[in-house]
Parts: sequence; C-alpha cells; structure tokens
Amino acid sequence: MMQRQLAKKLVRFFNSAASSTNTGAQYRSDMSNQGKQRTEAPKFITEDDINKKVVNAEYAVRGTVPTRAGKIKQLLKEGSHNYPFNQLTECNIGNPQIFGQKPITFNRQVLSTILNPELVNSEVYSKDVRARAKYYLERMGNTTIGAYSDSAGHIFIRESVAKYIAKRDNHLIPPDVNDIILTDGASQGVQICLNVLISDSRDGIMIPIPQYPLYSASCTLVGASEVHYFLDEQKGWSCSVEELKKQHRDAKMHGINPKILVVINPGNPTGQVLSYDTIKQMIEFAYDHKMVIFADEVYQDNIYTPSKEFVSFKKVRSELPYPYNNIELFSFHSTSKGLLGECGLRGGYFEMCNIDSRVKEEIIKLRSMFLCSNTVGQCTTELMCNPPTLQNASAETVEQYNNERNALLESLKRRAQIVTESLNKMTNITCQEVEGAMYAFPSIKFGKKALSEAAKKKMEPDLFYCLNVLENTGIVLVPGSGFRQEENTYHFRITTLILGEDRLRESMEALKNYNEKFHKEYC
Amino acid sequence: MMQRQLAKKLVRFFNSAASSTNTGAQYRSDMSNQGKQRTEAPKFITEDDINKKVVNAEYAVRGTVPTRAGKIKQLLKEGSHNYPFNQLTECNIGNPQIFGQKPITFNRQVLSTILNPELVNSEVYSKDVRARAKYYLERMGNTTIGAYSDSAGHIFIRESVAKYIAKRDNHLIPPDVNDIILTDGASQGVQICLNVLISDSRDGIMIPIPQYPLYSASCTLVGASEVHYFLDEQKGWSCSVEELKKQHRDAKMHGINPKILVVINPGNPTGQVLSYDTIKQMIEFAYDHKMVIFADEVYQDNIYTPSKEFVSFKKVRSELPYPYNNIELFSFHSTSKGLLGECGLRGGYFEMCNIDSRVKEEIIKLRSMFLCSNTVGQCTTELMCNPPTLQNASAETVEQYNNERNALLESLKRRAQIVTESLNKMTNITCQEVEGAMYAFPSIKFGKKALSEAAKKKMEPDLFYCLNVLENTGIVLVPGSGFRQEENTYHFRITTLILGEDRLRESMEALKNYNEKFHKEYC
Repeated sequence: MMQRQLAKKLVRFFNSAASSTNTGAQYRSDMSNQGKQRTEAPKFITEDDINKKVVNAEYAVRGTVPTRAGKIKQLLKEGSHNYPFNQLTECNIGNPQIFGQKPITFNRQVLSTILNPELVNSEVYSKDVRARAKYYLERMGNTTIGAYSDSAGHIFIRESVAKYIAKRDNHLIPPDVNDIILTDGASQGVQICLNVLISDSRDGIMIPIPQYPLYSASCTLVGASEVHYFLDEQKGWSCSVEELKKQHRDAKMHGINPKILVVINPGNPTGQVLSYDTIKQMIEFAYDHKMVIFADEVYQDNIYTPSKEFVSFKKVRSELPYPYNNIELFSFHSTSKGLLGECGLRGGYFEMCNIDSRVKEEIIKLRSMFLCSNTVGQCTTELMCNPPTLQNASAETVEQYNNERNALLESLKRRAQIVTESLNKMTNITCQEVEGAMYAFPSIKFGKKALSEAAKKKMEPDLFYCLNVLENTGIVLVPGSGFRQEENTYHFRITTLILGEDRLRESMEALKNYNEKFHKEYC
Repeated sequence: MMQRQLAKKLVRFFNSAASSTNTGAQYRSDMSNQGKQRTEAPKFITEDDINKKVVNAEYAVRGTVPTRAGKIKQLLKEGSHNYPFNQLTECNIGNPQIFGQKPITFNRQVLSTILNPELVNSEVYSKDVRARAKYYLERMGNTTIGAYSDSAGHIFIRESVAKYIAKRDNHLIPPDVNDIILTDGASQGVQICLNVLISDSRDGIMIPIPQYPLYSASCTLVGASEVHYFLDEQKGWSCSVEELKKQHRDAKMHGINPKILVVINPGNPTGQVLSYDTIKQMIEFAYDHKMVIFADEVYQDNIYTPSKEFVSFKKVRSELPYPYNNIELFSFHSTSKGLLGECGLRGGYFEMCNIDSRVKEEIIKLRSMFLCSNTVGQCTTELMCNPPTLQNASAETVEQYNNERNALLESLKRRAQIVTESLNKMTNITCQEVEGAMYAFPSIKFGKKALSEAAKKKMEPDLFYCLNVLENTGIVLVPGSGFRQEENTYHFRITTLILGEDRLRESMEALKNYNEKFHKEYC
C-alpha cells in the first residue's frame, strides 16, 4: 500500500519537475508553485527584471534535492506516514553538528563567557576559560562583544591568526596582520575577493572539475569566464600540470584571459590531499602564466590517510626560489569544518600574500560595507588558531582539549573509511579513497533504462538517481552534475559525517539496498 | 610647544592628502603608502585589474576621517603625547556599546546559555533564561547553535519575527514566514536584494539626500543609476512628493528608469521621523510610478519626540485602498540599533511584501550561497522580536527587562537632546531636532578663508573641518559630503551615543571651543 502511494507521489513529483533539465530551474519551478498560491497581486518587479547573473548562478548544495528534502521534512513533521523512513539523513552539506558532533568544550565555555562577561568573575567555568574570555573582552571596545570591530576584524584576533599561520608553516616571521581579513565563513571571503579582482567577462577563473559549486556560482555572479581543469579520478582525483596547461591554452585561444587559479585542498567534493610536489608545480604553472592563486584550504585539519599530510600553498610558496616565492596568493580558512565544525557561528579568515596594496584597500573597503564579520565568529576563529597549550592553560584543560580533539579526528577518519568501503561494495558504484575533507564522491554507472527514464523527465541521470534515493531512503545526496563532471560520467556527493556507527552502517545498508533495487528496476 | 608640533603634523598630513578631493580617493592614497612600505615584489594583479564599480563605491562611515582616526588611535596606544587628548571619541558610527551602553541582561544570559547548553540544566541563570535557551536549542538541529540553519534562517525564529511584525502593526494575520529572511545585519539584506533586482545601468534607485552611504555605495556596486531626492532641512528634513515627482521626471528625461524608492525612517543621518501622511503619499507616489519601496526601518525603536511615533510602511500600506495596498515593499531591520545595540552580533532580517515568487526564489538562492546568517545573530533577532512578557516569563524577569529598556530609551532621548542643544549654541552651526535614530546632522557655514584653505588642500570644506576637529579634539565626525548634501551646503554627522553625561558635556564643550577657534582662524 505504502509503496503504491510512494510510486504515485514520485510520478506526481517527477511530472511537476518535468519542466526543466537543470537543477537551478527545477529548484525554481518547485518554489514558484508555492509562491503563486500565496500572492496574486500585480507586480512591477517580475522575472524579467531579475539580474541574469543571479538567475544563471547555480548552487546545487542547496538546490533541487535539498529543496525536495525540505518538503519531505515538513511532511514528516506533519505526521506523514507515506515514507519508508521517519527522519531524513542530511548528507548533502558538510554540517557536522547536525549529526550530533559535539563542539569543543573549552571553546564553547569561552564563548558562553564573553556573551555574559559576569561569568569572568564567577566560579562557573575554570580559570583557563575565564582567563581566555577576559583576554578577549579586554581587547574589544569597552570589553563588549556587542560592538563593531574594525572592518577587517579585531586586530588581536588577526595577530593570533598570523601566529597560527607562522607556526603551521614552520615559519619564524608571522604574516603582517594587515594581510589577514576575518570573515563570516570562507564563502564570504571568496566572494569579496572575486568581486574586487574581476572586471571583465573575458577574465577567466580556472576551477577544478569536480568543484565546490561556490566557485562556479560566484564566477557567474561576477560575470567572469569559467575555465575548467579536470581532476583525474582514476589517479585518486589528482591534478596534472599538463591538464592545466591544456585548458589554459584552450581558454586563451577562445580570447579568455585566466587570472585566477582556484585550488581546493583537501578536495571538495573529491577528498584528495595534494602532495608537496603537485602544489609546487601548480604554483610554478600559475606564476609562469601570470595568475594568482585562490587556495581553498578550509579542510586543512581534516586529513585521514596516514601517508598524507596537509601542506599549505603558503608554505610551499615560501620555500620556492625567486620569482615563484612571490606568487600572489589568497588562502581561505573557516571555523565551519576541521575539528570545530562550528558552521552556524560563521567564522573564518583569508590571508593575502604579495597582493598589490591598492587591491588590498579595495578588498577592505568592500568588507567595510558590511561593517565587520560577526564578533562571536571572530572569537571562534581565535579559538581555532590558538587552542589551549601548556603555555597558556593548565595541564587539565590541555588534556581535556587534546582528548576531545583526538577522539573527534579518529571518529572522522573511521567514518570516512566506513563510507568509502560501503560504497565500493555497491552495484555500479566505485569510490576513490577519502584522504581528507568530509565527503565521498563516488562514480555511478547507469543502465540504458535509467538514462532514458531520466531523459524522459528532462533530468540529469544522477539527479534522477538522487531524487529516487531521497524518496526511498530519506538520504539526501547531491548529484555530481551540481559539481560538474566529465561528460558521460555520473557521480554523487555524500558527506562522511553520519555519527554513531550503528546509524552510519544502517544508512549505508539502506543506500546499498535501494541502489540494488534501482539498478534492477532501471536496467 | 605641543601646539607647534600639532600644526607641523597637520601640515604634513594635509600635504600628503593633497592628492585628491574625494573621501574614497583620499582613503586610498593613505593606505597605498602603508602598502608600498610592505610589499615590493612584482604583481600580476594591479590597480588596473580592480573592478571599477568597487573602486567607485564610496563608504564614508569608514572613510578618510575614520581611517585617519585609526592612525591616531594607534599613535596614542604607542604613547604619543602630541595630541591634546588621550582617547578618541568615536562619533562616526552608530556603535552604542563602544561607549559602554550595557546590553539587555536577559538577552545576553540566553545567548550565554545556548553557547553552552550545559547551563540549561544548571542553576547559573533564572528559569526564564533557561526556558528560552531550551526553546531555541530544541528547535535547532540536534540542539546546537553550531549547525547551519536553513538559508533563510531558522524557521522558528522567522515565525517569531512574523508575530512581532503583526503585533507592531496591529495586524491579526502574521506575515508568511517565507517572506522573511534573516541576515547578518541589515546592510547584507539590502545588498542581496539590490543584486537580484538590478540588471541594467539605466535602472534607477531613488535615494534620499542626505542618505546613509550604504545606498550610494551599493548603487555603484550593482551598476545602477542614483536618482537623488532632497530632504528639506528647513522643514526638519521632511520629504515632499513634489520633490519626488520632480526628480523622477528628470531621471526619465535622462533615460533612467527608477525602479526602487529607498526610504530611511527614522532618518539616517537626518534623524527625522516620517508622519503617517507622508508615508501614505510616498507609497502612492511609488505605486503610481511603478516602483518598489526599500524601507530602511532599523531605527524603528529609536523615537525621542513625544509627539512622534514610528509607523511602518507595512502598516500604512495595509491600511490603504487597492491598488496601493499591493505596493511591493522590502522592509529591513537589525539588532545593531534600537535598544539592543548589538552591532557585533550581526543580526537582522528583511520582510518582502507582495514580491514576485521568482524574485523571492532568486533572493533566497543568493542568500544560500553564503549558506546562512550567523545563528547567534539569529537568536538575537528572536530576542529583539520576542522580549520577556508576563505570557512567557516571570514578573521579576519582565520587570528587570522593562527597567533596563526604559532607562536606556530615556538615556538615548536625553543624549540626543543634549547634543542638539549643544550644537545649536555653536558658532555657524544649526541643527534640526533629532526626532529619532542616533545621529545629529547639523549644517555648518564656512567663511571664505576656510573654503579657500580646503580648496588648496583639494578637499571638501566639511572634510577639512572634520579632519581639523579630529586632530584637535579627538572627536571623530563624518563630513556631510560622505552622505551627499545640497550644493554649497556643508554638514557633518555626529552620533548622539556618548555615554555618561559628564563625558558627553565635556565632548560637546571641546567641540564648541574648537569650532570657535576654527571659525576665528579661517574667517
């Protein structure tokens, strides 16, 4: 009975979706229906008035599948029994705490204190917590978190970030604090910098394929040209300089001038960790072709393969001979990933290396139009860059912090392994090792029937697959088409964050079983 | 002696500034010098690569004078005795807590609890505080503030905002939560909406003059045409429909199509509170001319004149006959002003009335590219919209809240009066009554010598004046030219937030005395 209802519902949904092929349009057609029910009055601002750059920007992480998932979530909340599951498993976005990942105790106690400075003089928290909170409050205007900071962020926090970068890269001299800007998450930093650097539609931005959709979307928003370079899935999503040179050549032939090389390391959605030598070659390539580098390094603390370590572009750059040690570099980091997973607090920073002073001024001016990044996120960034150590805290605090940190890293590593192993046991699915970050990006092969069914629905096959997985298992995936992929290959992105090994194994089992069913049905 | 040093320093500074006339350029030339000392290496990205729209956007609130103030602040910190003051008085930006304004106790205790949920089950805070925190945590993913919310913000908070709007406007039906988007402060909401609505350089945005520079800056960033309508200073900065019609006509004659009417009520920097009838006429004007309204209502709780009350555009709209009750309206609010003054926490929302569903989808999509607004700011927004009442809290909590609220409102009112009265006693300065918001925007007349001195320095006279005030008193003002003003009139903006009546009167005295001196010297 339930299965029949489900089938009907699916048909209804797919037909309503049949109006479009791309995720963005699908997302829209869904919402228009909502909208039309609501407002009937005549409008002066209509579809034709919308900035086309915005219309054309696609952001699959919050696209068709998550939009449909939102509706199902609502139905479940309203008590619907039409689904073979009673809750969603939201694997579409790197949101660790949604699965119950615990934030670092010390960090949260410090934040709890700065929100209510009275706690500094109470016994509620340890001396170490109160000392850290006091340190922040004394350096903020009138000891309050409620005041605007400088546009670029509180200077004492930028000093901490500078020290962190120096320590990370075994460098003696910390960077100039004026080269560090605090942001509400990394995405904001990327968009601010692109807005300043892009002035012409022939400006090219080289982005890896597959990529995190922020880059293709931002590229569209600022009106630049996307130049794709393909990662080699068979070689663990590695990047080759030959491919970079080839794509750069092709772009030039088409009158496009690549100005920015975007690198995501560890990879999102692909999970690879770049080697020192690859980074070296990418820097040399970028310099030789007069490009600046955008290094998205938000997963620098999410490394799972013992044989791999994170090396920053900044570090490799500083160890190269002139002129390569002068490459212009932006590096982005965030409090949303790593071992904090504080997505909601919106903290982050970016560092500018050897950036023209005029460019920097314009970046700071643009930043200043939003006044400043949120101050709680700024303090969270300080906590990320300056954890408790025996130099600044008691052995007890340090031990608790290290225990939490190590347990979390172990757990993240184990979860990544379980997901990869499970995926590789599924019919028509192969998945590269997840060396870092928090996603698996398996490739999936479809039979003729699946392809023709998807074509009938005017959908990418992987979108068709992910929607079926959602309706049948409650697991929210993002189709590979949202990240771009080589033609005639299909993928999906799944986060490796499901917490509690039982729930993780159950979800993987559910996916395995439905995947089996899907391929039987459509092959 | 000190005076001589000061004079020398001034000359040096002014000469170094002599390269430009506009605040933006000035701001830049300052910083370039810094920059050049720092980095010498060759650059691929230079001044010529910068997006011209960004270069041309000016944001005086963080412009020349505040930039210079930042340098002086640093010098004072380093122990400089070259100034006749030992601290700055930062009246350039509405940042209440920088002067020691206390945040609302209940709000901060709730925020302190959600950052560390263990406090829900402790005795640290009152039952009311813990109940509110528990209410939030239960409605967030996995009871954590550290997870991303929906792109538009947590739905339970948007529901609170909807109820608040209905109550404020004596309306029975709360707005649809899908018409409410939570933001990191109001500025972000304005920029998101403008980015979606503006698609052509002939699209016009009608902005009041004087205006808050966010609007002229955003207008430049999105590549729209500014259409100025002038407020009548002699009539308390009132707005006349004749003026709106005149400017609209002129714009049309120049091939510009005004699409958006920006209204700031209470006014920034002008402090006037619009009457019901004026709002009615502005809505009728906007509808008759096929425009949508952007109502910047962030100062709706800052009303000081007993005879005036805040009326929202939403309320007037809903009480007008068809078709005017269908006017397309965006209304922006923030936790940074009002009685919270929580600038650093970056909370806010905007409401969309009768906006086309496709336009709304694109706004939400653009919002989703930054994932979501920070969740602490979201909870602060809920606290602003849903204060403790006898329905949701104990008499004790309600009384404490009301006492803090009323004391603060009284104090803000008194400070506004003192500033206005003091300014009106100063030579060549006249100031309209500050009916609301947190700024005075007095007009100042300059003698021939001041005008020619300023011309020599290639500066607007009011910039020249504000820089002198800064160097001689440490008071940071923003020149009227940063807000735009009628030709051959000069003004400055000063916040009315200096706390502690002694400090306030001292600052006003210092300004009065230097103003006297300035006019003697330059007349």
